[in-house]
Amino acid sequence: MSQQYTIADYLFDRVAEAGASEIFGVPGDFNLTFLDNVLASDKLRWVGNTNELNAGYAADGYARERGFAAMVTTFGVGELSAINATAGSFAEYAPVLHIVGAPSTALQDSKRRIHHSLGDGVFNHFIKMVEPVTVARAQLTPENAASEIDRVIRLILKKHRPGYLLLSPDVARQPIYPPTTKLIDSQEDITSQAALSDFKQALTEFLPNKTTTLMADLMVHRLGLQSQLKALIADTDIPYTTLSWGKTLLDENSDRWAGTYAGVASRPIVKDAVENCECLIKVGVQYTDTTTAGFSQDINEDVVVDLHYERASISGKNFAPIALKDALQALHEVMTSGINIVPKPFCEEVKPHEQKGKDSEAIRQDDLWHIIADRLDHNNLVFSEQGTAYFGISDVRLPEGVTSYGQPMWGSIGYTLPASLGAAIASPDKRSVLLIGDGSALLTIQELAVMIQERINPVIVLINNDGYTVERAIHGENQYYNDIPKCDWQIMPRAFGATEENSVLLKAETAGELKSALEKAAATTDKLIMIEVIADKHDIPPLLADISAALKPKKD
Amino acid sequence: MSQQYTIADYLFDRVAEAGASEIFGVPGDFNLTFLDNVLASDKLRWVGNTNELNAGYAADGYARERGFAAMVTTFGVGELSAINATAGSFAEYAPVLHIVGAPSTALQDSKRRIHHSLGDGVFNHFIKMVEPVTVARAQLTPENAASEIDRVIRLILKKHRPGYLLLSPDVARQPIYPPTTKLIDSQEDITSQAALSDFKQALTEFLPNKTTTLMADLMVHRLGLQSQLKALIADTDIPYTTLSWGKTLLDENSDRWAGTYAGVASRPIVKDAVENCECLIKVGVQYTDTTTAGFSQDINEDVVVDLHYERASISGKNFAPIALKDALQALHEVMTSGINIVPKPFCEEVKPHEQKGKDSEAIRQDDLWHIIADRLDHNNLVFSEQGTAYFGISDVRLPEGVTSYGQPMWGSIGYTLPASLGAAIASPDKRSVLLIGDGSALLTIQELAVMIQERINPVIVLINNDGYTVERAIHGENQYYNDIPKCDWQIMPRAFGATEENSVLLKAETAGELKSALEKAAATTDKLIMIEVIADKHDIPPLLADISAALKPKKD
Repeated sequence: MSQQYTIADYLFDRVAEAGASEIFGVPGDFNLTFLDNVLASDKLRWVGNTNELNAGYAADGYARERGFAAMVTTFGVGELSAINATAGSFAEYAPVLHIVGAPSTALQDSKRRIHHSLGDGVFNHFIKMVEPVTVARAQLTPENAASEIDRVIRLILKKHRPGYLLLSPDVARQPIYPPTTKLIDSQEDITSQAALSDFKQALTEFLPNKTTTLMADLMVHRLGLQSQLKALIADTDIPYTTLSWGKTLLDENSDRWAGTYAGVASRPIVKDAVENCECLIKVGVQYTDTTTAGFSQDINEDVVVDLHYERASISGKNFAPIALKDALQALHEVMTSGINIVPKPFCEEVKPHEQKGKDSEAIRQDDLWHIIADRLDHNNLVFSEQGTAYFGISDVRLPEGVTSYGQPMWGSIGYTLPASLGAAIASPDKRSVLLIGDGSALLTIQELAVMIQERINPVIVLINNDGYTVERAIHGENQYYNDIPKCDWQIMPRAFGATEENSVLLKAETAGELKSALEKAAATTDKLIMIEVIADKHDIPPLLADISAALKPKKD
Repeated sequence: MSQQYTIADYLFDRVAEAGASEIFGVPGDFNLTFLDNVLASDKLRWVGNTNELNAGYAADGYARERGFAAMVTTFGVGELSAINATAGSFAEYAPVLHIVGAPSTALQDSKRRIHHSLGDGVFNHFIKMVEPVTVARAQLTPENAASEIDRVIRLILKKHRPGYLLLSPDVARQPIYPPTTKLIDSQEDITSQAALSDFKQALTEFLPNKTTTLMADLMVHRLGLQSQLKALIADTDIPYTTLSWGKTLLDENSDRWAGTYAGVASRPIVKDAVENCECLIKVGVQYTDTTTAGFSQDINEDVVVDLHYERASISGKNFAPIALKDALQALHEVMTSGINIVPKPFCEEVKPHEQKGKDSEAIRQDDLWHIIADRLDHNNLVFSEQGTAYFGISDVRLPEGVTSYGQPMWGSIGYTLPASLGAAIASPDKRSVLLIGDGSALLTIQELAVMIQERINPVIVLINNDGYTVERAIHGENQYYNDIPKCDWQIMPRAFGATEENSVLLKAETAGELKSALEKAAATTDKLIMIEVIADKHDIPPLLADISAALKPKKD
């Protein structure tokens, strides 16, 4: 009977069909037996993480690259440790399925004081707790397994946000037949053709003879519409920008790239291009306080053409429902139909960055991110932690092909370290580059062990600046709550399995040393590289100075 | 105005009054300004943790020693990272106040996409998520601050379980006057004198001429009734036991100590004493699956006198409401009133442990815990991780004065490392001894940095047995999901700040080496000691073999 097809097999087949070839998590006594089904699967590989929060972050990073990820934890203790990662996946649109191993049906029915429960005989507390941060949830039973597995995974894929399945071992091993339907029905389309037709007509009337800029953001990436957007840019002459949340959606080396838009914290060229055009085309834009320097965008909504998840609008007039891909296609058709599209001219010349400090001098934040950016490779997945790294990298030009990831909406420090692991596993032909400060790295540092075991060979640039510099920029510049304990970052990777055979550990105090280290990193692709960059604890990138001023606690 | 007394000052004064002199947590931009009030307080000291889950565990350990603890995190990201610790505090009765820094009132009112929120303009998701694992919650406003702070802290102290306060920086800095009432009104008493009188009468009739055993557990500790229980034991001659959850409540070196009761996994003497007596007095006992080998206790409820939180019973007949302290007092009076109390005789002689392996041989789990126990000191706080350590230590005799802590109900691996830090900070005259496996230690290992910074100088016995041995005992003995990445445990503490000046790092492969290492540890009280014990990955303590058999997934 052990070869019989079971509910666990059905679930993991659907996980594979949804796009995952790995599954993350931590074992626990309520999930062990169905982890055997993962190990037995020829479609999935188990990647054990060092704790559940790290597993959740890794799954999030994997989902960003792959469009879907799955993780397994155990009841109560495991799932609640991961719930912050799930909330982040919800806020930032990462489609992750969280499978939780539950006490057996008989144990739950006994209503006794079972370990990993609150001891009150109630076993649905945690599925309720996860409700605000998931788009679908189910407790699987032999009666509902197939339909609920399908429903939850389909909603995850449709909404690009997490879902949750609670599975007892006794349910997992019940026999079932393999699915005969496809998981994804590509025919489903929310777009109203009438709305689309009206939208095109309105575009044809609105667009001509107006100075025009395009601004793209996150949802283009999450809906997988990068190629379609790039095609639009290729077939037109308009300047473009992204918010930092949408960074690297478009080629940043074109002379039409205006820079990253960030409200009042924007550089003059991009601020002018966005705020002083006669037509601003927004594609998948979501303003957040951190990406707009506290909602400081000064944009006249009358000039805006806004394409979003299932709605388009022109000057505030709605056309819905129209799926973003269809709105983008309509826009493309109208803009290339022969009407007169006028690119918004830049208000000044784009100047290349000039290094402020000498190569022999201590590294300054206003050079640091340019030096890194210049040495990135087209196949890099760059994860910038929500500290000086995120704001530093947001403001510089990245090479074509690089994908930039951060977490500006949820902003959970420590996120990028495991997330960069997950993304690298999702895309083994790419190399992850992790830009992170010491304070943030400490939260999730043990995941280094999995990076080394998995031989993902990342480049880790660890900014050692004595604590939470991003917090110092906001409040408590010299207060000791912004300090962290003294760690030895040269030894750290060795504690988690780094050896001379699998890693290179470097330290850079000057700009010149950093350049050499980055060149060595680029040339050494078969090892983990850690570059410890010594930086001043009060030095911050220019963009962060402006943004933190906007985020400072107000006397309100 | 900066010297004016504020709502933050009121809150932190109440935290101090409730029993805390330290406060744990991680800074974040929504709590920074009121952390200044902690730093300015002459009653509280800030102890920053390396992440929020570790902060929650540290607060839990502190609360177990002190009777109250407080921690501060930031909105969304911080609080959700800690929520598993809060759930553990709820399940295991640790009174912890969780203070969360929220976006300002103005930002919340704006309903905009603020970082650390889900982006939907709704700011009460997280206070709802924490509801099942807290006894009281409040979002503080200038209108409700004093009464809500008092209500939440009072309920935490009364129920010995966690509570939650959400505090925006703008609310925190509102002026208020210091409290004029006492936080704790010691006059409150739930006991009905009529119930108590009837209970005493019934005891007087029930107790005489029956062979009697006493069994104590967790709630005696949580209600702070250890002295009262010890006085009862001192004034009578009956044999006694505890469950592992109540270990070290009573002197284990007396010849009246029957051993630790664990259902079918009990040794014969204690099994007989509990299950074959004519009167079993239970004090603060809560059966869980892990402490009773799957509820295998074979106890005739007709012979039971049960004293609990606010109810006493005899042969199933309830006397309520009676507070446990009053029931214990009544029991003491009746048992010493001259009636004939008959101690249950032991069924066989108690034999001391004989070491199974030689000093020159590899360490065996059936010797390991005896060797450690024999070298503990009366001022040790022993934290045994819910793996082989917990089950190993549960079964051996600990010296008088030692306090044993574990987490058998919630069972969140990684818990004990930060919890032992918190307890050591709560009781600086005691020394924490941490018994933990490599798999568990990896989850929360960065808290070593705070141990070293705080100079708590613990003894850490790290069982290096290549992964999750407790899971192997349950299922998947050789499956790779029970493996963990290779770490270098000798280097590990150095990565987190250990030096020759502040630490001694040792390794023991044989019983003899372990004895020497433990003796060195006992003699070196001014440094952190880490003893890496090499153990076989399939070797488990005898108690765990019996209990894991009871917890194995059943074909149900």
